[in-house]
Amino acid sequence: MILESAVSAPLAPPLQISRWFNTPAPLDLMQLRGKVVVVHAFQMLCPGCVQHGLPQTQRLWQLFRRDDLMVIGLHSVFEHHAVMGPPALQTFIQEYRWDFPIGIDQPAAHNPVPLTMQAYGLQGTPSLVLLDRRGRIRLQHLGRIDDIMLGLAVGQLLAE
Amino acid sequence: MILESAVSAPLAPPLQISRWFNTPAPLDLMQLRGKVVVVHAFQMLCPGCVQHGLPQTQRLWQLFRRDDLMVIGLHSVFEHHAVMGPPALQTFIQEYRWDFPIGIDQPAAHNPVPLTMQAYGLQGTPSLVLLDRRGRIRLQHLGRIDDIMLGLAVGQLLAE
Amino acid sequence: MILESAVSAPLAPPLQISRWFNTPAPLDLMQLRGKVVVVHAFQMLCPGCVQHGLPQTQRLWQLFRRDDLMVIGLHSVFEHHAVMGPPALQTFIQEYRWDFPIGIDQPAAHNPVPLTMQAYGLQGTPSLVLLDRRGRIRLQHLGRIDDIMLGLAVGQLLAE
Amino acid sequence: MILESAVSAPLAPPLQISRWFNTPAPLDLMQLRGKVVVVHAFQMLCPGCVQHGLPQTQRLWQLFRRDDLMVIGLHSVFEHHAVMGPPALQTFIQEYRWDFPIGIDQPAAHNPVPLTMQAYGLQGTPSLVLLDRRGRIRLQHLGRIDDIMLGLAVGQLLAE
Repeated sequence: MILESAVSAPLAPPLQISRWFNTPAPLDLMQLRGKVVVVHAFQMLCPGCVQHGLPQTQRLWQLFRRDDLMVIGLHSVFEHHAVMGPPALQTFIQEYRWDFPIGIDQPAAHNPVPLTMQAYGLQGTPSLVLLDRRGRIRLQHLGRIDDIMLGLAVGQLLAE
Repeated sequence: MILESAVSAPLAPPLQISRWFNTPAPLDLMQLRGKVVVVHAFQMLCPGCVQHGLPQTQRLWQLFRRDDLMVIGLHSVFEHHAVMGPPALQTFIQEYRWDFPIGIDQPAAHNPVPLTMQAYGLQGTPSLVLLDRRGRIRLQHLGRIDDIMLGLAVGQLLAE
Repeated sequence: MILESAVSAPLAPPLQISRWFNTPAPLDLMQLRGKVVVVHAFQMLCPGCVQHGLPQTQRLWQLFRRDDLMVIGLHSVFEHHAVMGPPALQTFIQEYRWDFPIGIDQPAAHNPVPLTMQAYGLQGTPSLVLLDRRGRIRLQHLGRIDDIMLGLAVGQLLAE
Repeated sequence: MILESAVSAPLAPPLQISRWFNTPAPLDLMQLRGKVVVVHAFQMLCPGCVQHGLPQTQRLWQLFRRDDLMVIGLHSVFEHHAVMGPPALQTFIQEYRWDFPIGIDQPAAHNPVPLTMQAYGLQGTPSLVLLDRRGRIRLQHLGRIDDIMLGLAVGQLLAE
């Protein structure tokens, strides 16, 4: 299967977020234990994110009960920082009507790569990270992922 | 969840097949115990089957290991029998290059609805039936089913 | 441009049709002089026709005024004749709800290729033939043709 | 037909552009007389533009000879000005690899609507404007336009 074995899978590092959208309170992976968590790392000007990753994430959010599954967008800007700041992201979210929780990956002091992206070792956008109910990273995928494959992976984690 | 509870789910009736394609030997649900089984009931001249159901079934077949998952096409002709006979189906399979196992649902003597379709109570095509590893019907769906949703259901059954 | 020059373009041979669907009377290219004519040659079990060519032809039929433009489907069966006969085609037309005029290309006595297909020298299906208002063949294309390109060619002929 | 009659069509006002991309020199409608001109007015954070209008414009640009047809993108920002400035647009063009000429519609002093958008009376984005070889506005369309329909309109203008 495409999932990492539960035995060897590492615990997910905390999300380091400078600002949240679409959520009344900040989200904390510790408090999400017991749920399967899908994290979609994107940049608002990344074509593959806009055309495939974000619509797929939005559909996941609409399809499934939120008790079992949490969907999080992570805006991990590692290039063109000047034009993808918080006001630009806010407009992007509003115009595209994304309504799942989205957090801005905390910029680093002396590194273009933001802190959560560094901690997870993400290589680019779009990236998908799946956490099981115990907070372990069971899938980390760079690039486009097939809808059936994504559903299958999430389904397996939900059944554990 | 969309799956029927394992407790109340009925055992799947046997497939009644007059002819198989794309398999060296007839398939028997009893011998498939231990695997998750996806049965896609279609008619070769049903637009929803040709445009959505069959391509989705073909993708499932390509994506996953066959040890765990078996994918079966069921040609359940309940109308226009004269033009969807075995030679027409054979040409259809060849031209579209479907390569998963496909069985012809056994015609009934005095009923336009074939025997397997009757036994499962299928209401039309496309229909999707998901069996768990113990041969129970956990999902029966008439019409189009979303790729993510299908993956999720299959993933849950694989994880059981 | 993609169109054949009006000067060198040959006159289109007559359509040889054994049976018409979706038209109160047989269509005759001579009587269509003054209109631009789009002929889409297909086979009902040809995947490229079903997935692309026929939906595109149906859209052309819906989009444009019929005074200026005539759209004709030509069922040119050159293989698997036994399973693509008139009753099969009739069911296919009914199930897919194609509503533009469709004619069955007249079978030849000692040749699998039907008569109109022979006369036009069509190499397979899907094929598209565009006739100008004076009945000359200005485009003959085997395989998929882009929507914009098709619109452009038709637009140029309509403007002549 | 969908085109405005040549007799009643108004002359297109000049484009008022503060900065050009993807062109060695500014484009001037007067100098484009003799060509058919397609102007696609968009905003970089408008979903309908990104998903449909800009890819369609890019395809037009790739499909046709540039001697006959000129394709121009017009960045007409009338909302969220702060996040769709020139550096943001430049990144957007670079990331999506649009390679047709794009001009920034000149901002107005006391009006959120930029000057060219005002002069043409455009009601929003995406908008499409087609000019004939004599520089007259023959089509002005707000919202999505079908590929076949666009091709047809352009084809008619090319043939005049």
